[in-house]
Amino acid sequence: MEIRQFGGPEVVQVRDVPDPVPGPSEVLVEVARSGVNFADTLLREDGYITSATLPVIPGGEVTGRAPDGRRVAAMTERGGYAERVAVPAAHAFPVPDELDDVEAVALLAQGLTAWWLVHHTARVQPGDSVVVHAAAGGVGSLAVQLARMRGAARVIAVASTPEKRDVAMSLGADIAVDPAADDLTAALLAANDGTGVDAVLEMTGGRVTDRSLAALAPFGRLAFYGMAGGVEPEKVSPRALQRRSATVSGFWLMHAFDRPEVLQKAYAELSALVIAGELRVIHGGDHAMSDVRRVHEDLRGRRSIGKLVLDPAR
Amino acid sequence: MEIRQFGGPEVVQVRDVPDPVPGPSEVLVEVARSGVNFADTLLREDGYITSATLPVIPGGEVTGRAPDGRRVAAMTERGGYAERVAVPAAHAFPVPDELDDVEAVALLAQGLTAWWLVHHTARVQPGDSVVVHAAAGGVGSLAVQLARMRGAARVIAVASTPEKRDVAMSLGADIAVDPAADDLTAALLAANDGTGVDAVLEMTGGRVTDRSLAALAPFGRLAFYGMAGGVEPEKVSPRALQRRSATVSGFWLMHAFDRPEVLQKAYAELSALVIAGELRVIHGGDHAMSDVRRVHEDLRGRRSIGKLVLDPAR
Repeated sequence: MEIRQFGGPEVVQVRDVPDPVPGPSEVLVEVARSGVNFADTLLREDGYITSATLPVIPGGEVTGRAPDGRRVAAMTERGGYAERVAVPAAHAFPVPDELDDVEAVALLAQGLTAWWLVHHTARVQPGDSVVVHAAAGGVGSLAVQLARMRGAARVIAVASTPEKRDVAMSLGADIAVDPAADDLTAALLAANDGTGVDAVLEMTGGRVTDRSLAALAPFGRLAFYGMAGGVEPEKVSPRALQRRSATVSGFWLMHAFDRPEVLQKAYAELSALVIAGELRVIHGGDHAMSDVRRVHEDLRGRRSIGKLVLDPAR
Repeated sequence: MEIRQFGGPEVVQVRDVPDPVPGPSEVLVEVARSGVNFADTLLREDGYITSATLPVIPGGEVTGRAPDGRRVAAMTERGGYAERVAVPAAHAFPVPDELDDVEAVALLAQGLTAWWLVHHTARVQPGDSVVVHAAAGGVGSLAVQLARMRGAARVIAVASTPEKRDVAMSLGADIAVDPAADDLTAALLAANDGTGVDAVLEMTGGRVTDRSLAALAPFGRLAFYGMAGGVEPEKVSPRALQRRSATVSGFWLMHAFDRPEVLQKAYAELSALVIAGELRVIHGGDHAMSDVRRVHEDLRGRRSIGKLVLDPAR
């Protein structure tokens, strides 16, 4: 699936292109399933953090088989919406047989982001109150569970529909909040017995970020890892942060690629949790690659729940 | 020493006032020395983070003796520039005999701030590059040494005069930078072999904050714990933080008062390091309380180096 010009879902077109040739530190993966991410739709519109050079094959994660037959799941900057892709060997993780393809892919960009946010960026501690925005989404649904496992005293799930809030509650959230609340700060405080919250995982942007920041307790941390709403939040005054000893962090998984040994460890840990039944991946649908336009439309329309994958054989 | 109206050094006046009466969770300290902090001069001008109710006795730290004769060092919100002060018992720390009074006081606001910044706010890790602004100051001089002890690979000291830079180098900094550099970002990068820095401890404000933030590496953290220059830094875009997975944190020691058990542990740890000869406190001068105006002028004029204390008996 190739993009030759930026635009709507219609610009993603089937093309016959030569097989990629893996470089010396790469491995060629025979793709079983490609993961779909919100970032793919932004790339398509040239609205992502960095701009792509055209033509480009979107897709940053795949699962499939290495030339030696081993199952792998792999991160790649581009090229995942294809039957074959060359990926950096350092970012190809072994996949235990007990995982299905959707799980194997869900633990890549989304699993590793959730893991990094909870363990490093927001550094959730036992006893913390943790707000998870888009809590039924790919990252959010995993983050709710990982925050719980870290010993969070209260997990506050924010999700935009009753159905999504039900999903978040079924994953272990203590309470669910509608982000459309007239006063989101007050709603978050109310969900935490009237006191400020210790950590916020935020990927919406705009007033959701602003109003979440205002709900932080002393030493509270807000991790900003996306801007799905397309609206920049207000800029933050360091002086205002000092008045509450608060923290704002950005996170972009691309930077974690420089620490492949940490990602390998995290992927193995996440896999083991899924196999043990302690971490649940929500399957969002196994689609034919030829349906990519509709899948992108559903994702951007925020109608989907759970991990979406594409099958390049269909 | 009481302030009845906000203003310059002249508003700090000797008064005879009744002895304070300790509340149920307080202890009355017979003051041997009172510590002088930059914040005291801001309080005097009504330029501090919070405003004081007049009349007010400034001074947030003392060392002396508890009624049972034990040596203590204590934090208090106000009232330290006096012969006697009632302090919260939770914020009165035991002082080993091996410490002198200047050391006992230097390990309070400044020692605890340096400790918290290095261990918690900026979370210095082995191998990190760490920029310490005002590196010859009370907090900075201790932070240089604590960052070194945490295993920082490079400690970059920023100080405004050759004499201050020499002090910072003598404490173990690897390289010293003048904050008046035309391009401070470039100067910090050059001091780190051309690459971004992992942590910045910043208390100047204005362009020093702005230009330091621009020098952060991916996953870099800037800890903003004061604004000695009186100028607000630029506000920070969460989106820009995401582009580098960077963090901005505020820190105000007042919030740490809610965790007295952590402060008690930190004070004991700092005392042990001083006694072991691993942490050096710079003595800035033992002054008569009646000289407080001149001491404030020197501090605000940034002419002083090291910890300044006042003796209420003189």
